[in-house]
Amino acid sequence: MSEKVVKVGLLGFGVVGQGAWKHLTQGEAGLEKLLGVRIELAKASVRDLKKTRDLSIPSEKLTTDSWEIVDDPEIDLVCELMGGINPARELTLAAIAKGKHVVTANKALICEHGAEIFQAAETSKVHYGFEASVAGGIPIIKAIRESLVANDFKLIYGILNGTSNYILTRMEKEGAPFDEVLAAATELGYVEADEALDLDGFDAAHKAVILAYLAHGIWAPEGGFPIEGIRRISTEDLQAAGKLNCKVKLIAVIRRDFETNGVALGVYPALVPMSEVIARTDGVYNGISVTGDVLGTTVLTGRGAGQDPTASSVISDVVDAVKVIRGDKPPPKLLHTHEGVCRLASPSEVEGSFYLRLTVEDKPGQLARVADTLADQGVSIATVLQSGIPERSAASIILTTHATNEHSISMAIDALESLSGVLDKPVLLRMFDPNNHSK
Amino acid sequence: MSEKVVKVGLLGFGVVGQGAWKHLTQGEAGLEKLLGVRIELAKASVRDLKKTRDLSIPSEKLTTDSWEIVDDPEIDLVCELMGGINPARELTLAAIAKGKHVVTANKALICEHGAEIFQAAETSKVHYGFEASVAGGIPIIKAIRESLVANDFKLIYGILNGTSNYILTRMEKEGAPFDEVLAAATELGYVEADEALDLDGFDAAHKAVILAYLAHGIWAPEGGFPIEGIRRISTEDLQAAGKLNCKVKLIAVIRRDFETNGVALGVYPALVPMSEVIARTDGVYNGISVTGDVLGTTVLTGRGAGQDPTASSVISDVVDAVKVIRGDKPPPKLLHTHEGVCRLASPSEVEGSFYLRLTVEDKPGQLARVADTLADQGVSIATVLQSGIPERSAASIILTTHATNEHSISMAIDALESLSGVLDKPVLLRMFDPNNHSK
Repeated sequence: MSEKVVKVGLLGFGVVGQGAWKHLTQGEAGLEKLLGVRIELAKASVRDLKKTRDLSIPSEKLTTDSWEIVDDPEIDLVCELMGGINPARELTLAAIAKGKHVVTANKALICEHGAEIFQAAETSKVHYGFEASVAGGIPIIKAIRESLVANDFKLIYGILNGTSNYILTRMEKEGAPFDEVLAAATELGYVEADEALDLDGFDAAHKAVILAYLAHGIWAPEGGFPIEGIRRISTEDLQAAGKLNCKVKLIAVIRRDFETNGVALGVYPALVPMSEVIARTDGVYNGISVTGDVLGTTVLTGRGAGQDPTASSVISDVVDAVKVIRGDKPPPKLLHTHEGVCRLASPSEVEGSFYLRLTVEDKPGQLARVADTLADQGVSIATVLQSGIPERSAASIILTTHATNEHSISMAIDALESLSGVLDKPVLLRMFDPNNHSK
Repeated sequence: MSEKVVKVGLLGFGVVGQGAWKHLTQGEAGLEKLLGVRIELAKASVRDLKKTRDLSIPSEKLTTDSWEIVDDPEIDLVCELMGGINPARELTLAAIAKGKHVVTANKALICEHGAEIFQAAETSKVHYGFEASVAGGIPIIKAIRESLVANDFKLIYGILNGTSNYILTRMEKEGAPFDEVLAAATELGYVEADEALDLDGFDAAHKAVILAYLAHGIWAPEGGFPIEGIRRISTEDLQAAGKLNCKVKLIAVIRRDFETNGVALGVYPALVPMSEVIARTDGVYNGISVTGDVLGTTVLTGRGAGQDPTASSVISDVVDAVKVIRGDKPPPKLLHTHEGVCRLASPSEVEGSFYLRLTVEDKPGQLARVADTLADQGVSIATVLQSGIPERSAASIILTTHATNEHSISMAIDALESLSGVLDKPVLLRMFDPNNHSK
């Protein structure tokens, strides 16, 4: 056995915390051989000591006081696996200030306070590892920061939320409506307590913000880019997408225009061409497609959440942190070395084609009025499909547009909503084009 | 500009060498900002000074003497991009002995002399980087060694040779015969001068040997595992695979049995179920599916060869080497910390189902004789498809077997070859089953 010991404390002992504990215990001998250092699991903080857990550990290792872990001078490394902003932020900053290394899976915290935490970690020369915060077990953080360091990134896009992908996949394969599949997914424990995170795109947006910082050195503020979810998608949209040789996926898109250095960021359901690996990434899987100026395109897929995949990433960060603790290497730089080169693009700069589904009164001239309204906003139509909805004596108009910008389509939607004969709020989806490297 | 300079010499200035030089030059300012060290391209060795090249560099930077680079005390880092065993091995070992760090894309060299070179690099405490040696721009080496360090690997498999994948894809999509597509691929410059590397599975085998060492600490000797190529595959096989909801892919498979710690290694064309990302990885693309005991499955796809993707990986290793040179961290360990745990499995341990295509005389009773011959070897048939080949007054029998082992099927093939009425050597393909984690 090694004489050197690294003591680890866990803040939070839920699904991810128990997974990390379990696999660090099972892998103890192997990791000691690899590192020449024994990793000792010292303590984990919980809300309720009496709660029954899948993993039982000695009761003296549990505490309800997270500060006991952060304040313990013997603990070298803290795994913040509690999630949420408070008290995770205070605990993280305190641990860093005390020279402890921190590993986390907390995307919301990094998204909101990454600038502050990264700066604090650099100042204290500690490792702040967050591989588990984006796409679970898929090693996308290290890929972007180290393996693909030769590249500037034209396009990073993909599926960063497994729950919404699971719902869309079941809706498509079974022709089942959203509410029914959501109920099933909730039953399976796939949906976050705050379901807006999964269904309204916020979880994917947190991850996209982190990737955009890693790739381009910009912290995109909430409200600074479109975030749309999957609640209004119907099986009709999924079928129509199939006819267009696409699949509807909730994707995060980070696209850099090398001429203006504007970075267009967005999270929204889009029609992705079937030729893309991302279109064929189904169920709870995540997938990220990375296009670099040197590399070309590489795609990583895998389980984006869940106890074990997330533990795999947490442990890879623990190992990197131990290497820093062992004195072998300095912590990796967190602050982007090229901050200030790129900026967040505004909606009027972001071009693309759109898919629109309108429910209208089934009477003559309706399609013409819709077309006129779009034309008034400079939006031109590429394809149209009209079909009756007998049970409502209404009709459904599905159309796709030629390239336009986010600003014009948003004006067009407003105009359509107040157009006589348009019954529901229009459903708008983007047509994702991987080769749109123009604007 | 930094005061610190790392001088880099290139052994070999072909496609990959010029790519590395070009992108290191283009990325110079960015890398200096990232590293605080300027990377100076000092010299490149070539066979012929007068040859016209796509990339022209000052003539004083070229030399025909690779030893001039290895012996230059000012050069800190050598990129061995010449390929082949000799003189690459001598030059590499000499550079390492002189304390120089080495980055390479040379899979054949590592496959044959990896044990010796890794040991030498550890002894000299230098970085020996070989991310570019497997799957071009896909960062699989770092993924296995660092990002997925929490895992033992049940199964690593995929497409590691883009040329053979390109040929199979075109044969399948165009219904064109092997020879015709091979000619087209050769015309496009996709086929290695020694075409056996691409067509007979040797290039993929070199890469598989490297991955097997990284994952399991075993160096598999040539001749110790099956290596089969794509020359005998016909469009009929590709069509039959489609009917079985599979695609024929030349795959490398590294499967560990956790009970016996036997590692079954093989490179062969196989029917891969369409549900696998690997089955849908077409054209020149590579794809690697990694299943770890903690992670589950993650799949990486991308360009597996070519100037730019390979340069992307070379540069990531150059950056890691510069971090070592800068004194920030020790070189990563090369020797597997768990050597001796696993061993190469023998063919009789390796089980699976098979696809067989026989060309037989079109006469009554032929299928019965084939079935009897297989039964004699304990091989039982799962499905049969028989069709006439009018132009030869022969028939084609395509059958799939239930699970059997490599030894039995090999005996069965021998018996079938000498069976009366069997006209050609049988075509044997494996049925790849991702869930076969038994033996």
